[in-house]
Amino acid sequence: MTLPTADVLAAVDADIDGSLERLFDWLRIPSISTDPAYKADVERAADWAVKEISGLGFTGGKRQTPGHPMIVMHHPGPNTGGAKSAPHILYYGHYDVQPPEPLELWDAPPFEPQLIDAERGKRIVARGAVDDKGQVMTWLESLRAWHKVNGGPPCEVTVLLEGEEETGSPNLVPFLKANAEELSRPDVAIVCDTPMWSLEKPAITWLLRGMCYVEVTLEGPSHDLHSGLYGGAVLNPINALTSILGDLQDDQGRVQIPGFYDDVEEPPEAVKANWAALGFDENAFLAGVGLTVPHGEAGRTPLERLWSRPTADVNGIWGGYTGEGSKTVIASRASCKLSCRLVPNQDPQKIKAGVEAFFRARAPKDAKLTFRFFGVNPGLKVATNTAYFRAAEQGLQDVFGVEPALMGCGGSIPVVGSMQRILGLDSLLVGFGLEDDRMHSPNEKFERACLHQGIRSNAAILARLAEG
Amino acid sequence: MTLPTADVLAAVDADIDGSLERLFDWLRIPSISTDPAYKADVERAADWAVKEISGLGFTGGKRQTPGHPMIVMHHPGPNTGGAKSAPHILYYGHYDVQPPEPLELWDAPPFEPQLIDAERGKRIVARGAVDDKGQVMTWLESLRAWHKVNGGPPCEVTVLLEGEEETGSPNLVPFLKANAEELSRPDVAIVCDTPMWSLEKPAITWLLRGMCYVEVTLEGPSHDLHSGLYGGAVLNPINALTSILGDLQDDQGRVQIPGFYDDVEEPPEAVKANWAALGFDENAFLAGVGLTVPHGEAGRTPLERLWSRPTADVNGIWGGYTGEGSKTVIASRASCKLSCRLVPNQDPQKIKAGVEAFFRARAPKDAKLTFRFFGVNPGLKVATNTAYFRAAEQGLQDVFGVEPALMGCGGSIPVVGSMQRILGLDSLLVGFGLEDDRMHSPNEKFERACLHQGIRSNAAILARLAEG
Repeated sequence: MTLPTADVLAAVDADIDGSLERLFDWLRIPSISTDPAYKADVERAADWAVKEISGLGFTGGKRQTPGHPMIVMHHPGPNTGGAKSAPHILYYGHYDVQPPEPLELWDAPPFEPQLIDAERGKRIVARGAVDDKGQVMTWLESLRAWHKVNGGPPCEVTVLLEGEEETGSPNLVPFLKANAEELSRPDVAIVCDTPMWSLEKPAITWLLRGMCYVEVTLEGPSHDLHSGLYGGAVLNPINALTSILGDLQDDQGRVQIPGFYDDVEEPPEAVKANWAALGFDENAFLAGVGLTVPHGEAGRTPLERLWSRPTADVNGIWGGYTGEGSKTVIASRASCKLSCRLVPNQDPQKIKAGVEAFFRARAPKDAKLTFRFFGVNPGLKVATNTAYFRAAEQGLQDVFGVEPALMGCGGSIPVVGSMQRILGLDSLLVGFGLEDDRMHSPNEKFERACLHQGIRSNAAILARLAEG
Repeated sequence: MTLPTADVLAAVDADIDGSLERLFDWLRIPSISTDPAYKADVERAADWAVKEISGLGFTGGKRQTPGHPMIVMHHPGPNTGGAKSAPHILYYGHYDVQPPEPLELWDAPPFEPQLIDAERGKRIVARGAVDDKGQVMTWLESLRAWHKVNGGPPCEVTVLLEGEEETGSPNLVPFLKANAEELSRPDVAIVCDTPMWSLEKPAITWLLRGMCYVEVTLEGPSHDLHSGLYGGAVLNPINALTSILGDLQDDQGRVQIPGFYDDVEEPPEAVKANWAALGFDENAFLAGVGLTVPHGEAGRTPLERLWSRPTADVNGIWGGYTGEGSKTVIASRASCKLSCRLVPNQDPQKIKAGVEAFFRARAPKDAKLTFRFFGVNPGLKVATNTAYFRAAEQGLQDVFGVEPALMGCGGSIPVVGSMQRILGLDSLLVGFGLEDDRMHSPNEKFERACLHQGIRSNAAILARLAEG
């Protein structure tokens, strides 16, 4: 290694208590973006970050939006006299947090961070501990160590912090578009919002499933009917809707939407080998949610089913009488919400058309179908054969001594797609959460070891990226 | 005819305005049984009936129950010196009414009865106009005509009026049991709560479908899950429940519950001929509820599907996220309410077991099923080959000049089963409502012609019953 990473890592280790104190300071600010009562606190959390990052040699600060401010800050990197010696990195994160309710389920007040003893060492408990203040601190504190030892990072760095991630990022896309020239200058983004495989095994998430989410309403009779007077001789919309949905999967668990699997790609063999080596314990996975029997598409491993195979799940259904006791009504309509998780290379518009065709082909002639699509976006993958990806793998291996898991993510991270589409910027999804961190739930936590190893990892990845 | 029915019918015609006035008096009393605020009014409606019936030579009156009072009154009939010359008749009806809400949909206040001009002559509009005060008045006023002309009815008569029919008759069964000795003395009951086939064609209802009503909950994961993190690899209870319900009918509309049709009887050929002659207009029936395509069991006429064939309708379904927009949840449970309309000779306990078996055979191994049965009672039929039934047919033919329709009723009338089971008493279901009377709805109405022909019919049926 040509860069003095050992010194930087030593600086990280020496100041870990300081890192923890700073994270606690930030966690004490209740930056709940969804509740207008906390507007000043959200602003305060942004100011806190600007001040800390400014202290590391960055320029820039808050940028106003119609909602909470964005933060954009720059560091020129080492003075190379204009010759570009290393990639320009963009770090993305968010400084807002979820509301803490229900408060009575917290063991301590959510904005009074605790450091408690747990089975895997010390544990940070607070709203935002992992999502996303703790994760942001893994790269922010790595930049501090680089600043302390070398006067700054070994690359040009841009920071982009958002204050509305927990409200669906309403101003992110307009902001990226309005500032595309400036924000498309970096070569690669690092997004720190994903989990590790385990405390011992880091991970890079490279597959993100997309979504086709639809609400379908099936209408039959013009008004609710008495099942005694009409039952058996008129279309019952609930019977009709359940009959259609009952056809969603065949007995092999394959989704019956036309063309559903046409464009699905198999992951590269190297990735499949990486997954096989993870030793995923399906029984433990199921037991964690009170189940015992494997479920899903036949002939696929559980990690394939979760990461690289598309799905169709009914997320909600309603119709007719749902109160206590009995009411013999034939409802005039029934509705459901259905989401398909999509994988890269599936065309969401084609799936959307397939969903409509699936329902129309099975609906009784007299039924009126209405479709409302709420989210239609493609699956994403990060190229695994780039120098940036190899740098992230190497940096993680430097710190953990093991190969990172190449994970898929069943959910989507919209900012990754937005940056790819609007800025032409690929992301490295390197995060340090654990599956049991209770994101969005009471007693949200972040293991101190995750914070510490995360700072070390980001410091090492930065070195590896700077090597080019 | 040996009895002077013509005189009685003339007396009915001469006093039809008086009948109408008395009905209006009764309708002005808001005897809403379900709302404790109307307790005194319910009592007043009972007192009104006792006074009117006492004036016709009956003894007896109110009997207290834990809820609203029952009315039981007796008339010894003609003095035959102890020799039984004619059957003893029990008239059943109820003096309570449904709540009138929503009030804003009424054209006039619901307890200020109106006589308005409509396409089929004068029309009585008020809460209770048909259900059941108007229908009760058809036999009460026929008894008045008999009293006026002949000093009393030609048979021994018992009257049973209930004040809690609209709240599910919570005290009826205990009352029948406690007074079984007294109330089982009559030979046949007349229940006046069913419709005519049309204004020109009267009807006797002889088939009542029974019920097997169940709420089923299917549980999977121990708690709600994020579909991004679990979708495709765990049991989704809504998918599983809809998959089961989707199997409820085959492509011929036949219910797939095991043993469902084993004991179903075909109606007698004479009844089928009666139905065929009715000229049921299926297109008009469907158009009335905004539909155009016939639906139900293949190879059956619409009246068979409505009256003599069992059904399975999902009356309600719920699970997961049902709010605005999207939420990518895999719910831990899903529920439905399912009702099977049963026909005579089907064993409800066998159907209940079949419903459970149907779900259990199709549920994923990991799913937990819970069944709550709310109503399990058999279909009923009235013997059509008795002297009483023939007397009712003849009386109706005397008045209308046409054969009555021998109708089935898709719903159940619990009192008929209770009287059969507890008192051993068969019922003649002879009613004078019309399908469009808006029972339980705003602007409930009863055609004056229905009232008038109903009084005449009951007077004539009484004569025919007395002939023996």
